[in-house]
Amino acid sequence: MNLFPEYLEALRGKINGRLEEVYPQGPPLLAEPVHYALSGRGKRLRPILTLLTSQACGGQEADALHAAVAVELLHNFTLVHDDIMDRDHTRHGQAAVHAKWDDGVGVLAGDAMFVIALMELRLSPGRVDELTTAFAKGALAVCEGQALDKEYESQEVVSVDEYLRMIDLKTGYMLGMAAELGALCAGAGEEQIEGVRRYGCLLGRAFQVQDDLLEIFSDAGTMGKSLGSDIVAEKKTYLMIVALERVPAQVRRAVQEARTNLEAGLTAMREILEAEGIRQEAEESIRANIDEAKAHLTSLKEGQILEAFADVILGREN
Amino acid sequence: MNLFPEYLEALRGKINGRLEEVYPQGPPLLAEPVHYALSGRGKRLRPILTLLTSQACGGQEADALHAAVAVELLHNFTLVHDDIMDRDHTRHGQAAVHAKWDDGVGVLAGDAMFVIALMELRLSPGRVDELTTAFAKGALAVCEGQALDKEYESQEVVSVDEYLRMIDLKTGYMLGMAAELGALCAGAGEEQIEGVRRYGCLLGRAFQVQDDLLEIFSDAGTMGKSLGSDIVAEKKTYLMIVALERVPAQVRRAVQEARTNLEAGLTAMREILEAEGIRQEAEESIRANIDEAKAHLTSLKEGQILEAFADVILGREN
Repeated sequence: MNLFPEYLEALRGKINGRLEEVYPQGPPLLAEPVHYALSGRGKRLRPILTLLTSQACGGQEADALHAAVAVELLHNFTLVHDDIMDRDHTRHGQAAVHAKWDDGVGVLAGDAMFVIALMELRLSPGRVDELTTAFAKGALAVCEGQALDKEYESQEVVSVDEYLRMIDLKTGYMLGMAAELGALCAGAGEEQIEGVRRYGCLLGRAFQVQDDLLEIFSDAGTMGKSLGSDIVAEKKTYLMIVALERVPAQVRRAVQEARTNLEAGLTAMREILEAEGIRQEAEESIRANIDEAKAHLTSLKEGQILEAFADVILGREN
Repeated sequence: MNLFPEYLEALRGKINGRLEEVYPQGPPLLAEPVHYALSGRGKRLRPILTLLTSQACGGQEADALHAAVAVELLHNFTLVHDDIMDRDHTRHGQAAVHAKWDDGVGVLAGDAMFVIALMELRLSPGRVDELTTAFAKGALAVCEGQALDKEYESQEVVSVDEYLRMIDLKTGYMLGMAAELGALCAGAGEEQIEGVRRYGCLLGRAFQVQDDLLEIFSDAGTMGKSLGSDIVAEKKTYLMIVALERVPAQVRRAVQEARTNLEAGLTAMREILEAEGIRQEAEESIRANIDEAKAHLTSLKEGQILEAFADVILGREN
């Protein structure tokens, strides 16, 4: 699997090429922010998953390209709107759409990207009807996940189960849908479609927990986010929720400390997570989800492609 | 046609009944604003147009109900997002979604309504594929119209042609789509579909110019808006654009006056529009568009239903 990073890069190139073409003309105040958002330095993991799943089910890569690009458009629609809701002013190291223009332009560009995603999806050859139904379900799940995320902000205690429900909706279903669309494009059967959908959901869960881990344990540069910002904002991540359940007083002290001295508070938080074994549990949970995800691939012709992709996600090597 | 208002009321009742059911459960922070937005006192003209068009093409009313409700959901999605963009805090006499909750909830509730609209549309019996394509085109047109509207805000001079292009996209295509969906639900042929689509577009243009007229010449209560607010905000309406082309100095004086004394400024503006014959021209333009709209109905079985509907729009009797 030495060629894998180069292969993923080639797929990324095809996706980016098509993304440049999806909205060839429109009013400048719409076309410019849409192109700006789509030219960001995203990893394109979701559309790559669609292409790889199509291949793993024995399909032709070209048949899944429109569906893959629709997934990336849908993902970018949620990013542009989420950044408005969360007042995040940077995205992939550049100004967010609403920060570069204004909130109104951000709302509108996001709306248009959603519609363009639907149009792009419907250019797919084959089972457009099933593709559209899966796409709509996935889109509604993302909205519901975002609503739960907002609800939890004002909720004193969030349980691990509630958290997992939220990330399943916000992240898991989207990855599940990305895989499902790929299988549909390949003309896969019911069992395979359901298998890759569940594989995608579990991958999404692993992906999100790992995101939470990296936020606390990696360098700021790697993630492109301000280190530990979630801690100061008391954002409910997997690690914070588990830590709050076990040693609430210690966590609150670390959060307090982070507000006056970010580095010291972060160090304290890291020590809690190590001492309580929470970091290790999170890493084990990621591995367990990945293993379970892989177990859903047995009925596929070329399941090893998706196994390798899961390892890339786990290692974040690419 | 004496029974017409009662008949429209009955259709409105069916649409409202279905609207209450389209999103039976979801996270409270999503379900509550969605239901709130949908329970507003809208006139439901767009979905009524879908139902009437289906009937005019010889279809069963029940076959078009899901498509009609999808149109209303799409319309409400645009209202919720437009109110955020335009910083309008009331809608149909009650607080706008973003004013009752916050901007984030408004963005999210709008997004969800769009997805629910798509799901509702796809419950239609029959030509779901064509319905979805027409729906996506209509939705993109609305986004483009809103983008042009925003562009014109910062543009010194807007021509009548530019204005008409904008309202065609923002209002006309949506009404054209509403009619097109009704015809598709009735299993109409190409000629009929194209005819009602053009009827709807022209009706939308007439509707918008009449809205601009009412804004200046009606009482505040009738329109549910603050009287003359467009003048103070220098909003480019049909009447203002024509007046600015003809007697720019006089218009600027009236706008200046309205800023310190709304009633006096409004009176001055009304006098300009009367003296220059602009009010009369606008009324003639509405009638001409309605006549042209009706001319597209000749191939329909029951075209007189849509003729009567156009008269209702023109008279705003209901």
